[in-house]
Amino acid sequence: MEPAISYRLIKTEKHTGARLGEITTPHGTFKTPMFMPVGTNASVKGISPEQLDEMGSQIILANTYHLWLQPGSGLVKEAGGLHRFMNWKKGILTDSGGFQVWSLAKDRQISEEGVHFRNPVNGDKLFLSPEKAIHIENDLGPDIMMSLDECPPFFESYDYIKKSVERTSRWAERGLEAHRNPATQGIFGIVQGAGYEDLRRQSATDLVSMDFPGYSIGGLSVGESKAEMNHVLEFTTPMLPTDKPRYLMGVGSPDALIDGVIRGIDMFDCVLPTRIARKGTCMTSHGRLVVKNAAYEHDFNPIDDQCQCYTCRNYSRAYIRHLFKADEAFGRTLTSYHNLYFLNHLMAEVRQAIMDDNLPDFRERVFESYGYNQKGAKNF
Amino acid sequence: MEPAISYRLIKTEKHTGARLGEITTPHGTFKTPMFMPVGTNASVKGISPEQLDEMGSQIILANTYHLWLQPGSGLVKEAGGLHRFMNWKKGILTDSGGFQVWSLAKDRQISEEGVHFRNPVNGDKLFLSPEKAIHIENDLGPDIMMSLDECPPFFESYDYIKKSVERTSRWAERGLEAHRNPATQGIFGIVQGAGYEDLRRQSATDLVSMDFPGYSIGGLSVGESKAEMNHVLEFTTPMLPTDKPRYLMGVGSPDALIDGVIRGIDMFDCVLPTRIARKGTCMTSHGRLVVKNAAYEHDFNPIDDQCQCYTCRNYSRAYIRHLFKADEAFGRTLTSYHNLYFLNHLMAEVRQAIMDDNLPDFRERVFESYGYNQKGAKNF
Ligand SMILES: [Zn+2]
Ligand SMILES: [Zn+2]
Repeated sequence: MEPAISYRLIKTEKHTGARLGEITTPHGTFKTPMFMPVGTNASVKGISPEQLDEMGSQIILANTYHLWLQPGSGLVKEAGGLHRFMNWKKGILTDSGGFQVWSLAKDRQISEEGVHFRNPVNGDKLFLSPEKAIHIENDLGPDIMMSLDECPPFFESYDYIKKSVERTSRWAERGLEAHRNPATQGIFGIVQGAGYEDLRRQSATDLVSMDFPGYSIGGLSVGESKAEMNHVLEFTTPMLPTDKPRYLMGVGSPDALIDGVIRGIDMFDCVLPTRIARKGTCMTSHGRLVVKNAAYEHDFNPIDDQCQCYTCRNYSRAYIRHLFKADEAFGRTLTSYHNLYFLNHLMAEVRQAIMDDNLPDFRERVFESYGYNQKGAKNF
Repeated sequence: MEPAISYRLIKTEKHTGARLGEITTPHGTFKTPMFMPVGTNASVKGISPEQLDEMGSQIILANTYHLWLQPGSGLVKEAGGLHRFMNWKKGILTDSGGFQVWSLAKDRQISEEGVHFRNPVNGDKLFLSPEKAIHIENDLGPDIMMSLDECPPFFESYDYIKKSVERTSRWAERGLEAHRNPATQGIFGIVQGAGYEDLRRQSATDLVSMDFPGYSIGGLSVGESKAEMNHVLEFTTPMLPTDKPRYLMGVGSPDALIDGVIRGIDMFDCVLPTRIARKGTCMTSHGRLVVKNAAYEHDFNPIDDQCQCYTCRNYSRAYIRHLFKADEAFGRTLTSYHNLYFLNHLMAEVRQAIMDDNLPDFRERVFESYGYNQKGAKNF
């Protein structure tokens, strides 16, 4: 049987080792490195599938935890799976629900079997095990699934992280065995280990021995500094096989994307571009721009004069600012579109820079232009 | 000088006298009878201009009162007018602001000169006169403008309505004189007179003597019954010239649209289809459908099995219900799209029925299928 998910490394950039490649799924072959927009509830907030496609999106993410609770994974299965349910024809990846259990749920009790917790919305008692997470994801039907992991804080003790990593490895094994649709869905194992190099190695070694079609790097972008994150990536990605994709979870600022690619990452996701867009904050080629600000009241330029997106080709800062002042949903759609296009386009430029073997120069240009080289620069 | 707005009567339906025609504006020639979607703040809530176009919209409405207060008509003028500001290339019509002054504003004081009132949001003192309304609309730059009218309650006394009608006629004259862009914008006079036939006649006679390029019928759909509204239309439209378009303001339920056309109306607008859509209520060929209801949880049919719209071709009731439960903006976009398409499509069918001289049969079929012939039928 052909595996559902495969990866082909096309080229490594000569200065950095950054990887140009492609990932093949049952819903098409996609270019890496890539950024994946997040559609938590089976909808990228305010954006249609046609718009996602038009802006160059390839794989999008949906959240297992949210969909399990509403509308329920059984209902999505009944609908024919997430692709049909939400009308998205390219790739879909779901997380395991683990991160939300660790960040949102109440009264969490973790055991070898799994994790008991309460739904923060209605207090319902819930239970998630590695098998259950995979079965929910089997019902949801994405191309790529995550195995259930524990996602402890970055600055936990060595002893705790060691126990956690070992449990996450055992859970990965159980998830793999529970998997019902290996012909149409692939599971990624999630490398944990916080900032401890030997625990990252232990986690990677365990998971690689199970031969997943791809590996996620979890437990980062959870409060540690960018320097710490980059340091962890530097020692972690070399522990992973070169013929499998590497996915850095929860990262979406322009600097972190480029620095992640330089450290061998192929896939990223984050709610950042859409979350800040809904508040009127845009990523632009000249840095962060808060379009709601009074400074843009009479500004008839596009959000980003270097951008060719639908928003920038058709609408002014003044119009978008007005829509935000008037609380019009279309304003949030326009900024969300722009920010997602901006990251998709940034990744296309990154792929070109790998092809051209000039990624360090490209990084320097982007950092300078975005304002990252200035003291006290904002993160996005 | 060619007038900015002209109308051509193509055919009258043989049983009812309903009119098939076309209205020519500086932004194109459009088919009547038509329904006009409302974009209060220079955006039809949750819908892009491309979607409006794709669903067959021709002229859309924007609200002078709202745009005057935010972002200000001067800013819209600076942007190059509403068409450029909001990226809509077909027709735009603005109301005069009068209706909002009468329904939203506080501490209203009406005099011959105009109306003093307070902004209900921030308490600011404001003043609107017939000249000022037209100058604001000149700045906004729609194809079709309304002259400032007083919009009293339907059940006001004869004496009050008589005084009001006479003042509205004097205001219409003043607005016409104040008009700065006759080559690119046309003003419609607004026939008032509540339910009094002789006052409607007085209003119509006054306005027709001023030779407007079109006539609105105001003061209806403000609380009176549908039978009362239809009765007023029956005696009012014959008072208007056949070579000018007639616009019935604030009407958007399927039954009222058809009954208005039968009584000689060419244009309608209403927030109804988008307002109810945002609450999850849809107009369908089988009547009203509240897609949020639990009954549709596992219903994988489209909102309307007879509808060919983007929403119905691609999404199920179950998915849309899920989006509403999860408070996802895309759900509101999908129902708004469907409802606007439904009314645009209904008007296209009405035009065909006029062409085919079978409008009474068509009305009967729609009323039966929508459920209007049942006792206690809901209005939409
Ligand atoms: Zn843009
Ligand atoms: Zn439809």
